[in-house]
Amino acid sequence: MTNVLVLHPGEMGSSLGACLLSNQHHVGWVSHKRSTATRQRAEKESFFEYSHLESALEQVDVVLSICPPEFAEATAQSIVAQDYQGIYVDANATSPMTARNIATMVGENYVDGSIIGPPARRAGATRMYLSGNKASIIRDLFIDTFAQPTDLGPASTAASALKMCYAAYTKGTSALLLNIRALAEANAVTDALLAEWSISQPDLQTRSERTGPSVSRKAWRFAAEMREIASTFASKGLPSGFHEGAAQVYDRLADFKEAPPTSTSDLVASLLKQK
Amino acid sequence: MTNVLVLHPGEMGSSLGACLLSNQHHVGWVSHKRSTATRQRAEKESFFEYSHLESALEQVDVVLSICPPEFAEATAQSIVAQDYQGIYVDANATSPMTARNIATMVGENYVDGSIIGPPARRAGATRMYLSGNKASIIRDLFIDTFAQPTDLGPASTAASALKMCYAAYTKGTSALLLNIRALAEANAVTDALLAEWSISQPDLQTRSERTGPSVSRKAWRFAAEMREIASTFASKGLPSGFHEGAAQVYDRLADFKEAPPTSTSDLVASLLKQK
Repeated sequence: MTNVLVLHPGEMGSSLGACLLSNQHHVGWVSHKRSTATRQRAEKESFFEYSHLESALEQVDVVLSICPPEFAEATAQSIVAQDYQGIYVDANATSPMTARNIATMVGENYVDGSIIGPPARRAGATRMYLSGNKASIIRDLFIDTFAQPTDLGPASTAASALKMCYAAYTKGTSALLLNIRALAEANAVTDALLAEWSISQPDLQTRSERTGPSVSRKAWRFAAEMREIASTFASKGLPSGFHEGAAQVYDRLADFKEAPPTSTSDLVASLLKQK
Repeated sequence: MTNVLVLHPGEMGSSLGACLLSNQHHVGWVSHKRSTATRQRAEKESFFEYSHLESALEQVDVVLSICPPEFAEATAQSIVAQDYQGIYVDANATSPMTARNIATMVGENYVDGSIIGPPARRAGATRMYLSGNKASIIRDLFIDTFAQPTDLGPASTAASALKMCYAAYTKGTSALLLNIRALAEANAVTDALLAEWSISQPDLQTRSERTGPSVSRKAWRFAAEMREIASTFASKGLPSGFHEGAAQVYDRLADFKEAPPTSTSDLVASLLKQK
């Protein structure tokens, strides 16, 4: 049995905690300054409550960081500052450069991670990628769970790099589709575009309608992920404009975070209002 | 019977000329300063040869411009300079702004056009879009041919706008896929990305392999089209970075114009060499 601290049990983090519990590991969370929603998720899963980070870090063997990418470095810093000596897994959608910064802070007990797919609540939907010298230890914790862990080998930032490449297409093209729908609307050719897509790109017509409700509540955190991706391309001397553009699209939609899932047409109107 | 001049009979232009011939129209081309390949295409179709532009313009009722977008304005200028009084159709992949510039030059006999799909050589593959007050005249010339003409109504740049929206996704995502494959290669995660795609995005794995041979010989002219698209987004206050990035990708592949169709792996290597 391994004692794991999940920072922080959002939808994804609590699903991964549940995977660990299903393998008989001990799973804890830190309640200090967390929201009511986080408490509800943690209590529903019966995670062990630590009132403060300090007491948690004295007891756990593994810390799992699951947060929006722009908070990944600060989260790691807060752990390192407590002189924590166990394994630290950053499973966030960060660039390899951000992952390397965290690896440098953490030292030999750093494991790079990334997650592709929705919260790990059913078979076959989610994959957890891990890399670094101690990746196999974390893979073993999640073995035979809905997280479907894969050890990518010793490269210290491979899991982050893979996530950037993957999301570059999926989330990049969702932003592109919304941007194109806005362009069609601004040029009064929406009906013609949808008619042409229905002939030659039937998937796009359907997908562009579904994209609105599927991304509206997540756009606020996709913007930072798009910037991590843009900087990943730039660091290899490759064009980064695609994801700078995608970040701008998602930035304009950040206000839909608290709204109900919103239609593509309404997101398009919002994109066009914020010239 | 209408007398039409096709500027210039490349693969697309000669297919459209053949459509007009099949409707019993007269189709001509101008041989002055054209390549041997153009002459061979024109002679194969039995288009009427004019030795110079001046003599052609004295006789035709319609001029159809089919050329890479960066030459569209200069081509129109060369026709206007001859005091041509007939209908001028620009069917190129230009922004609505470029189309508007040409419309201003040409005046009331301007018809905006665009073509979606491959050269019009078989049923159901290609659509020709037309807009402007005289669009229906051109639609009637192509009626019941492989060009499948659609009149989008009187808006003077609707056909160009539709083309920009359509190609923004198709050619934009082809560039994105090549860029992502290059990023994966630079981060040594190509195998992991292809394995993940094979699980969750099986179409992408196949498409990314096919993209290389399908775009390598056309990349040189896609770059200018991506810039037309980027400026179309910018003109409506929408993010333009996607297609600035796509233009940079295609710029780096311009040297494959004369090579045999080239694999995705070889294009990726070329993208990475030109940091």
